Amino acid sequence: MTITDLKGWTSAFSAALGATDRSALAALFTPTSLWRDILAVSWNLVTVEGADAIVDMVLEMQPQVHLGEISTSAAPGALEGWITFENAFGRGTGYVRLDGGVCLTILTALQSLTGHEEAIGRLRAIGTGRADDKRNWLERRQQEAAELGREIPPYVIIIGGGQGGLALGARLKALGVPCLIIDRHPKVGDQWRSRYKSLTLHDPVWYDHMPYLPFPENWPVYTPKDKMGDWLEHYARIMELDVWTSTECTSASYDATDRQWTVNLMRDGEKFAIRAPHLVMAVGNAGFPNIPAFEGAETFRGTLNHSSQHPGGEGYEGKRVAVIGSNNSAHDICADLVANGAHVTMIQRSSTLIVRQKTMQNVLLAALYSQEAVDQGITTESADLLVASMPLRTQEAYQKQIWQGIRAMDADFYASLENVGFQLDFAEDGSGMAMKYQRTASGYYIDVGASDMIINGRIALRSGVGVKQIVEDGLILSDGSHLAADAIVMATGFGSMDEWVARLISPEVAARIGKCWGYGSGVVGDPGPWEGELRNMWKPTAQPGLWFHGGNLAQSRFYSRYLALQLKVRHAKLPLPIYGEPR
Amino acid sequence: MTITDLKGWTSAFSAALGATDRSALAALFTPTSLWRDILAVSWNLVTVEGADAIVDMVLEMQPQVHLGEISTSAAPGALEGWITFENAFGRGTGYVRLDGGVCLTILTALQSLTGHEEAIGRLRAIGTGRADDKRNWLERRQQEAAELGREIPPYVIIIGGGQGGLALGARLKALGVPCLIIDRHPKVGDQWRSRYKSLTLHDPVWYDHMPYLPFPENWPVYTPKDKMGDWLEHYARIMELDVWTSTECTSASYDATDRQWTVNLMRDGEKFAIRAPHLVMAVGNAGFPNIPAFEGAETFRGTLNHSSQHPGGEGYEGKRVAVIGSNNSAHDICADLVANGAHVTMIQRSSTLIVRQKTMQNVLLAALYSQEAVDQGITTESADLLVASMPLRTQEAYQKQIWQGIRAMDADFYASLENVGFQLDFAEDGSGMAMKYQRTASGYYIDVGASDMIINGRIALRSGVGVKQIVEDGLILSDGSHLAADAIVMATGFGSMDEWVARLISPEVAARIGKCWGYGSGVVGDPGPWEGELRNMWKPTAQPGLWFHGGNLAQSRFYSRYLALQLKVRHAKLPLPIYGEPR
Repeated sequence: MTITDLKGWTSAFSAALGATDRSALAALFTPTSLWRDILAVSWNLVTVEGADAIVDMVLEMQPQVHLGEISTSAAPGALEGWITFENAFGRGTGYVRLDGGVCLTILTALQSLTGHEEAIGRLRAIGTGRADDKRNWLERRQQEAAELGREIPPYVIIIGGGQGGLALGARLKALGVPCLIIDRHPKVGDQWRSRYKSLTLHDPVWYDHMPYLPFPENWPVYTPKDKMGDWLEHYARIMELDVWTSTECTSASYDATDRQWTVNLMRDGEKFAIRAPHLVMAVGNAGFPNIPAFEGAETFRGTLNHSSQHPGGEGYEGKRVAVIGSNNSAHDICADLVANGAHVTMIQRSSTLIVRQKTMQNVLLAALYSQEAVDQGITTESADLLVASMPLRTQEAYQKQIWQGIRAMDADFYASLENVGFQLDFAEDGSGMAMKYQRTASGYYIDVGASDMIINGRIALRSGVGVKQIVEDGLILSDGSHLAADAIVMATGFGSMDEWVARLISPEVAARIGKCWGYGSGVVGDPGPWEGELRNMWKPTAQPGLWFHGGNLAQSRFYSRYLALQLKVRHAKLPLPIYGEPR
Repeated sequence: MTITDLKGWTSAFSAALGATDRSALAALFTPTSLWRDILAVSWNLVTVEGADAIVDMVLEMQPQVHLGEISTSAAPGALEGWITFENAFGRGTGYVRLDGGVCLTILTALQSLTGHEEAIGRLRAIGTGRADDKRNWLERRQQEAAELGREIPPYVIIIGGGQGGLALGARLKALGVPCLIIDRHPKVGDQWRSRYKSLTLHDPVWYDHMPYLPFPENWPVYTPKDKMGDWLEHYARIMELDVWTSTECTSASYDATDRQWTVNLMRDGEKFAIRAPHLVMAVGNAGFPNIPAFEGAETFRGTLNHSSQHPGGEGYEGKRVAVIGSNNSAHDICADLVANGAHVTMIQRSSTLIVRQKTMQNVLLAALYSQEAVDQGITTESADLLVASMPLRTQEAYQKQIWQGIRAMDADFYASLENVGFQLDFAEDGSGMAMKYQRTASGYYIDVGASDMIINGRIALRSGVGVKQIVEDGLILSDGSHLAADAIVMATGFGSMDEWVARLISPEVAARIGKCWGYGSGVVGDPGPWEGELRNMWKPTAQPGLWFHGGNLAQSRFYSRYLALQLKVRHAKLPLPIYGEPR
């Protein structure tokens, strides 16, 4: 029977799977088909390529996961659309794209565990308490907070109470998994408050919602940093999360015998330890300042700060400031210094991807994350799944096309930047910002005004040069020239997540786990082999009980669901088959 | 042309109005037709009865409000449905019910002012600040908060920072109207936190959303009081409201010459005054404890508290406690005392309406405010408008039917209560709780468990008796019997909103304005004449610049929109025709 649409394809797939018919299954895919599975088949995050590998995975896992019939709401004749299904564990959804009668891409994502659903909607708490419990909500909540991590051990410890840790904490709370969040800042939200003064989010509000509590409809498009900090603080209390602030994780070790972490903490100089079966690193990638060891730095007579210590442009009026770096922070800091009357020189050591914020919104986000999308009924949840439905191989090809369009559309803007010597790139293979972000999480600036300052010379530019050494009154650049400076800001980025593992756990564990983030694209900073998913993120690692969570607000929202489900299924002690488990 | 459906009716109406054809207009209504208008025709909240009065209002106002063509999305043949329209001021919506070709009821409600829309959705702020402004969001917000009420006069002062004041404040903020909220409690939310320990909201979460920021989907059905207090505190900060806490309004006076209020305030013993053109009383009806002057009260050897001072049941174990009253607070306090091991007697001085919370949810609210309603796509906004579309006359008739059903459904429950002597009523005319609430806002208990305690004797009951006097070891009841008590709680209610006017402004102004709340139903506590709307609530009063706002969370949400629009249209200095303006 010829397959002419998605309904036909899902029927054929379900029939072939039901009959364990390897060749019938294989006929539904091609050598370039991509199956992205999030927990539904693999209890892992994997993208499997080609008919053979896909059929191998499905038939290997099927005896344990019992993937049921796949339904689709797609109209007759449609070649792509949403699917839903159940398996032995719960309910899932996904998205399929066909080319004729065969599958180009399929996403399958487990959404809930049957019998262990989130306490939301009709399963939310009643709120009135139990008749035999004299305590009211406040007393119960206070007792719960006082006991967790003391009388009652958490099942999960999350290091880092930024958007990642809080989003995951909220998901775990809704699933009834005891979770303690550790953060070194005095108040929830201080990660954001403590950054440079002019910072606002570069992504728009529609992209940034946290789980369960979307931003209100009067929230600004680009959230200012302090307002973001406040939101996280409110969020933690509204979600009744247990966050220990002013608490630093000094080290952690895993006991393989009783499968428990011992996490050593310090608060107000006092040391103590907590044990838990699972440890989540949600420390973000702005944790360790990356401070190059510039020769002569100690001789500099002015102030020399990493971007994370730079207080903002006030007080710099009339001063000569050199900013080393050319990514987001460097640009924002330069613009703020100029606005405050400083004489600023940006030192661009390597090429940078620039995208105008408006272009980013109109070209890259508008279809799924915009007021127009909301008004057309596109929910955040469906937008997230559509993004997830595109495997990284497909994304690379698609983004190359998009970025050809952007370069043509903003050609005058880019020419003006190049005219003043700014070194542009659009990723090694022209695949643009989204791929740069997923490869190295660096190398770009979303232009909110600094590019115009570079074009019109309000920010002076030295490009294609490095810093040879720092001297008492400025810098010597790699071309031998001298740049006078009263102050230097090093916008030189931050260390990576795997560095935290080496520091907090051990170099051995760090080596065993390997790199976090990146997908093996083969470009500088993200060497192969091709992984098909971000390495070690939100999925089982080679270290039992150790997990990584992070990324921007959209990733924190989306992947927290799946990391929480993986922790919940372990908390519920369900027998757990894992495909492609790292060892 | 015979009118057979709503489409036909709206066409005929628009044609007749366009032609200023009095008799054609009158033919579309009957002597019992009801037109409820919220700002769209009247710039007032009015319900007009009968064809003649309706046509009078419409033709009197039309030269100024220019009500445009009325459209409906109703299907052909439908006898009721939604309408939309524009007028000289903005856009509106409404709902019409027909009986054959004539109108039974019509709601018209102005939703927005053209050119003065709320800064939400696509009109929200960008958030990145202006290029020429070195201040970031935090500095701008801090300056704005520091200046309002000092360098910059507010346009509106709201007395009371509970759900009413905050909801209105958020609406005004979105409309760009400078507004200062005054609250006597140390922290926003303390109105709720300071109430008796076991209190939770009696209305479910779906009924309780605040404007712009709905409760998250994991919020409990019945919000505990402290959690509600925290929510209001977060809400005020998220909405960037200017609330002066620990600040008491001591008096206010209006200068008719320059149309300004002088509002005298006290904070930490310091007195100061602020001026503003508009003053909103959002003090709620739990402001002044209503403390009867019981003879001999000073001789009582135990503790004698009003319900608002009662600390909760802890420490009352083994004590004999008399609770005077039989409404919500009395029942909740009795149940909490029993749970804490006290020997409790409720003194029921007059009959009470009881409804089981489950019955209330399933019968009275489920269709519009429930998880099922949400899952069926009924928005809070459309639910609110459907409720508003039913004029009070229609409500009375409808509620009588509903309550006949409830009495039959819960007949065993009610019989058990009567068996132990509990005196029940269902409002004088059998119209039930919603009408009692709108008439006197008292006389009922939403049963969350205390009724069973009365039925099984855990709460002792003395009904049909008053308190003759208090003696040193208890009370003498009106039948001459003695009731021994170690403690007495007076759950005797609170003073009314108009009392605030007499105290804070003057008895003369209070007398001119007359009663607040109630609609002239003619029952005890709500004497006629019939008003058709709640008296003085959310609408112009006989005192220029004085407004009343309040009610439960649903009313605070819904009516804050229309009170804010009335204040905005004055702030924008638009020429303003008002129908039925009180003088």
